[in-house]
Amino acid sequence: TKLEAVLSIGTHVIPHPRKVETGGEDAFFVGGDGGGVFAIADGVSGWAEKNVNPALFSRELMANSSTFIKDEEVSQDPQILLMKAHAATSSIGSATVIVAMLEKTGTLKIASVGDCGLKVIRKGQVMFSTCPQEHYFDCPYQLSSEAIGQTSQDALVCTVNLMEGDMIVSGSDGFFDNIFDQEILGVINESLGTDEAAKALAELARKHSVDVTFDSPYSMEARSRGFDVPWWKKLLGAKLVGGKMDDITVIVAQVKTVVIPDDEGSGVELEKVGGEQLAAAGVASTEQNE
Amino acid sequence: TKLEAVLSIGTHVIPHPRKVETGGEDAFFVGGDGGGVFAIADGVSGWAEKNVNPALFSRELMANSSTFIKDEEVSQDPQILLMKAHAATSSIGSATVIVAMLEKTGTLKIASVGDCGLKVIRKGQVMFSTCPQEHYFDCPYQLSSEAIGQTSQDALVCTVNLMEGDMIVSGSDGFFDNIFDQEILGVINESLGTDEAAKALAELARKHSVDVTFDSPYSMEARSRGFDVPWWKKLLGAKLVGGKMDDITVIVAQVKTVVIPDDEGSGVELEKVGGEQLAAAGVASTEQNE
Repeated sequence: TKLEAVLSIGTHVIPHPRKVETGGEDAFFVGGDGGGVFAIADGVSGWAEKNVNPALFSRELMANSSTFIKDEEVSQDPQILLMKAHAATSSIGSATVIVAMLEKTGTLKIASVGDCGLKVIRKGQVMFSTCPQEHYFDCPYQLSSEAIGQTSQDALVCTVNLMEGDMIVSGSDGFFDNIFDQEILGVINESLGTDEAAKALAELARKHSVDVTFDSPYSMEARSRGFDVPWWKKLLGAKLVGGKMDDITVIVAQVKTVVIPDDEGSGVELEKVGGEQLAAAGVASTEQNE
Repeated sequence: TKLEAVLSIGTHVIPHPRKVETGGEDAFFVGGDGGGVFAIADGVSGWAEKNVNPALFSRELMANSSTFIKDEEVSQDPQILLMKAHAATSSIGSATVIVAMLEKTGTLKIASVGDCGLKVIRKGQVMFSTCPQEHYFDCPYQLSSEAIGQTSQDALVCTVNLMEGDMIVSGSDGFFDNIFDQEILGVINESLGTDEAAKALAELARKHSVDVTFDSPYSMEARSRGFDVPWWKKLLGAKLVGGKMDDITVIVAQVKTVVIPDDEGSGVELEKVGGEQLAAAGVASTEQNE
């Protein structure tokens, strides 16, 4: 027998309060390939000013990612997955995106363009976190239908060795802009299931996002960049403190190990069983959970 | 011809103001193996209360690391390097430690136990950062001569794909506790050489560390953990704001690419040339630069 690492994955999406009917512009996919894979894309909302639905690009990018993950060439490399999915996406628009794939050895491979985020929590503390990439405040790196955008070559590409019990919390900027690490740790320490944890985290971020008195990570970052009340009001129609209303996508994944019986004749089949048992399978564009 | 990534590495150490004569308890080593390698160990000062010189463990750990890096089995794996160097260290004491190795392909491999840190700066922003590991505030994970300590198995192990021009800033907690990311970016953006940048960063952190009015990352973190003036005074003999006096070690490394002529008959020799041209070679225990 041998041990293989697999992800137990939970998801929750809460669209921007004014985008509830259309489901918002975040999209994600979750699959059981390898030890488990997930991705989040956040459609850049500025495209609405050009009469382009910002959800089309992010949803197509995720649908294409869920197709190409089956490709042997890309199933081990999140950067190649982004390259292929981006090239195949014909919608007009742009999106930030993060992809994470767990190898059965426990190595998590990550590629990120822009300000989606991913943190790993071990023994009650954040022991790994991605950093956002942006051109300037509130203008993240983004994969785009236009040549002016970034490509998979601009991605942050990194790996982190995970252990059984590690918790992964990933989300769009609408999540991380509205919640502090200590709050994330508080929810994760409650030992909920991954779906319940994703829901609790999304709802806490949602509550903060509509609270004009909450001194959010977003408002603190804005102030640290030198924004002050007049500028802030001008840019965002709000005062210097407050949450940031946005689509909120949260993925919570727990690293588990499964025992794989030694049976060399049926290795491929066993791999499929391991993946399907514990990784939430299937593809989802942004689904509305509220 | 082919391109290989190599590090141009600069270092600077400023001991704790009361430890200038002994050189402090930080130690480091820098080598030209692969695309370049460096490590920092920070001896845990509490051992002084037991009449143990806290510098002995960290210095021996770094000396052993510089020996084992020549071992083929460990030259590609910072976690194995830590395991072997730790096992070979006979001094009493303990230390936090970080090791970073650049592969010639541009992949930086990192293993970290405790609160030494490493950040990667690309295009004027922090695009990668390690997270500190600790048991509780001011008590980091540490490799130890005692069984109660952590081992290389507890290390944060991660890799990040680097590009030409990327800057790496690594240091002991005495550095990162006394300087903000925006200040690091300010120095790095001045385009100094790596030695000059390391010196400028160490001196800025040193200035803050002895400034009792500076609201340092350390004092902000302490407050966020619920420490307040009475506690703080009791624990640290200072008020709630202020820098943190400590040994300060800074390593700044720039990723460069060198052109390697195609000459299959002398691959090994060419590798050595590439490594020695741009990576600062040799071993150093804590050297006093001031």
